Amino acid sequence: MFEFEIDAIDEATGARNGRFHTPHGILQTPVFAPVGTQATVKALRPSDLRDLGATLVLSNTYHLYLRPGDELIRDLGGLHQFMGWSGPILTDSGGFQVFSLSDTRKIDDDGVTFQSHLDGSYHHFTPEKSVAIQENLGADIIMTFDECPPPNDYDYVKQSLRRTHAWAERCVQAKTRDDQALFGIVQGGIFPDLREASARFLLDLDLPGYAIGGLAVGESKAEMAATLDGLNPILPQDKPRYLMGVGAPEDVVNGVLRGVDIFDCVLPTRIARNGAALVKGERLNLRNAQFQRDPAPIDAACICYTCTHFSRAYLRHLVKANEILGHILLTMHNIHFLLNLVRQMRQAIHDGNLEEFARDFLSSYPPLTPSKEGT
Amino acid sequence: MFEFEIDAIDEATGARNGRFHTPHGILQTPVFAPVGTQATVKALRPSDLRDLGATLVLSNTYHLYLRPGDELIRDLGGLHQFMGWSGPILTDSGGFQVFSLSDTRKIDDDGVTFQSHLDGSYHHFTPEKSVAIQENLGADIIMTFDECPPPNDYDYVKQSLRRTHAWAERCVQAKTRDDQALFGIVQGGIFPDLREASARFLLDLDLPGYAIGGLAVGESKAEMAATLDGLNPILPQDKPRYLMGVGAPEDVVNGVLRGVDIFDCVLPTRIARNGAALVKGERLNLRNAQFQRDPAPIDAACICYTCTHFSRAYLRHLVKANEILGHILLTMHNIHFLLNLVRQMRQAIHDGNLEEFARDFLSSYPPLTPSKEGT
Repeated sequence: MFEFEIDAIDEATGARNGRFHTPHGILQTPVFAPVGTQATVKALRPSDLRDLGATLVLSNTYHLYLRPGDELIRDLGGLHQFMGWSGPILTDSGGFQVFSLSDTRKIDDDGVTFQSHLDGSYHHFTPEKSVAIQENLGADIIMTFDECPPPNDYDYVKQSLRRTHAWAERCVQAKTRDDQALFGIVQGGIFPDLREASARFLLDLDLPGYAIGGLAVGESKAEMAATLDGLNPILPQDKPRYLMGVGAPEDVVNGVLRGVDIFDCVLPTRIARNGAALVKGERLNLRNAQFQRDPAPIDAACICYTCTHFSRAYLRHLVKANEILGHILLTMHNIHFLLNLVRQMRQAIHDGNLEEFARDFLSSYPPLTPSKEGT
Repeated sequence: MFEFEIDAIDEATGARNGRFHTPHGILQTPVFAPVGTQATVKALRPSDLRDLGATLVLSNTYHLYLRPGDELIRDLGGLHQFMGWSGPILTDSGGFQVFSLSDTRKIDDDGVTFQSHLDGSYHHFTPEKSVAIQENLGADIIMTFDECPPPNDYDYVKQSLRRTHAWAERCVQAKTRDDQALFGIVQGGIFPDLREASARFLLDLDLPGYAIGGLAVGESKAEMAATLDGLNPILPQDKPRYLMGVGAPEDVVNGVLRGVDIFDCVLPTRIARNGAALVKGERLNLRNAQFQRDPAPIDAACICYTCTHFSRAYLRHLVKANEILGHILLTMHNIHFLLNLVRQMRQAIHDGNLEEFARDFLSSYPPLTPSKEGT
């Protein structure tokens, strides 16, 4: 269980094409996980996800704990059964969401007290509580409870690491199920020495996988790349690496080039509901008047259901009229875009031409400059 | 074109099982048409409709005229191409929607002036304009422009009939396409003499089908049934009969028992988005706390995707969390319920046991009483 087999490594970059074994199936890596925050990837059925080629779905501990409740989900057979997804699932620890509630949460070494965004009720998460919830949910991959600090404040990040590491140890202690892989989360902001210290601490815990947390939270794309470059030689070759919350297409490519195996992000589903479609190098805003009478699909080369059946003019109409079908069709296209991107990278690693593929793909995006321009 | 072949007639009731030929396929009758107000059946893809067994889809002239515009749809290849539905389509005339704008419309013998619900702009519909829009849209079945008066005011209904009939004649004159069937709409409120007069006037126009309008607008179910009983022997056997805007399951059964062939209604899709699921005899409100931990499907005997994959507990969670997937899954179930109902009735007519089927089905609903209890 939780074996990570590497089938091919790109010599130049260290990018890997592998297979991670989970109780609900094998993940071919690099893999992108659509996000099903509330036990549903918004606007898609499980059969759609399967047809699109999704293998891993992420769901959120914070949201499911509040509604419908992790014990209810446990009593109904666990999250796979509850949401009708028989493939692998990953749950986050709830930490990121809780820390995002910046106005209402209080943190100490025991854990975090926060107010529900639903009804204002008070709750307390600890590492032990996070693991217990995630065991009730029953995902294949679960995460340690960590603090996700602002990435640019050296002193705060350093202090925070002490807590994050102690919490990781408590999660390991609290864990009771052996059919779930507990991944550790490397923190350390944009500071190479702190990232290295965090990685080395967690490596000593000998976990089945390692996540890189605290990125895509305001640092520049160059800082994200530098952080990944710093961790690439430190993280073990034989464990999967998961870059949390990253899903902009160029970030996924840059992540794979730096040894990342697993990605998740709400980006493709969220921008779909705002009327935006991913194409190489840009996001088409279907609200734009230029598409009003455009008979072309979003992308003539795309083989997704949306692009093989509908015009930009029709999609614009759906978006303007706020029709659910607009959310559905753009979500399908955007998820297909990312799943196809990682599929192409798996093939490129296998074929030994990842750099060529990445160079071509990234030529449509701004270069990684070391400025602090943000993401 | 537009031939109506009757394969079987139920001797006791006159209910018919037939085939109506249209340019985009054959409609097996009785048929229920899901409503795609804005060129989309809300929450469903065309492939879903096909998989559910839908054959006829209704779309709304008023809405499509305002947005995205009937000329735009024409220029993009017509409504079938625009919305990706290759089966038969029916468009209403816009009359019902325009008359529903009771505060902002003005009617005279020429037509109706009204304000858009989108931006308050002024527009004028005439019979000629309605036909021109419907020709731009390009549906297989189009409707005459009529007035839909309050059903209980004898004097007003009688006056209104004069106008509705003159408008029907103008629609016939205005029509230029021979690949669209123009159906006439029988009005007359709840008054048998006015209904008969309206039917006889329209029969003289020798149209390829006849609709019964102005029902399900506040009269009792008994009044609806009496009106259908009155028209059953008057409307021609060899033309399809369309009961507009009716889709409560018991009303569909009562309609078929009184010779109706075609139904449409927003009910299954609208109540789905409110969290309600159709089962025989009732509507399950999935918001109810009783379903919180219910592992059963909506209906254990139902073979739809929703019932074969998801629990009431999960559906309740989706509805409470206002997830799009809740709309999708309940819409699929409710559309399946109505399509399966007419499928069963086609079979029952064919097998000669419609009365038995209807008696059993209607035993789950309140009887038709002649009180004015409303619908």
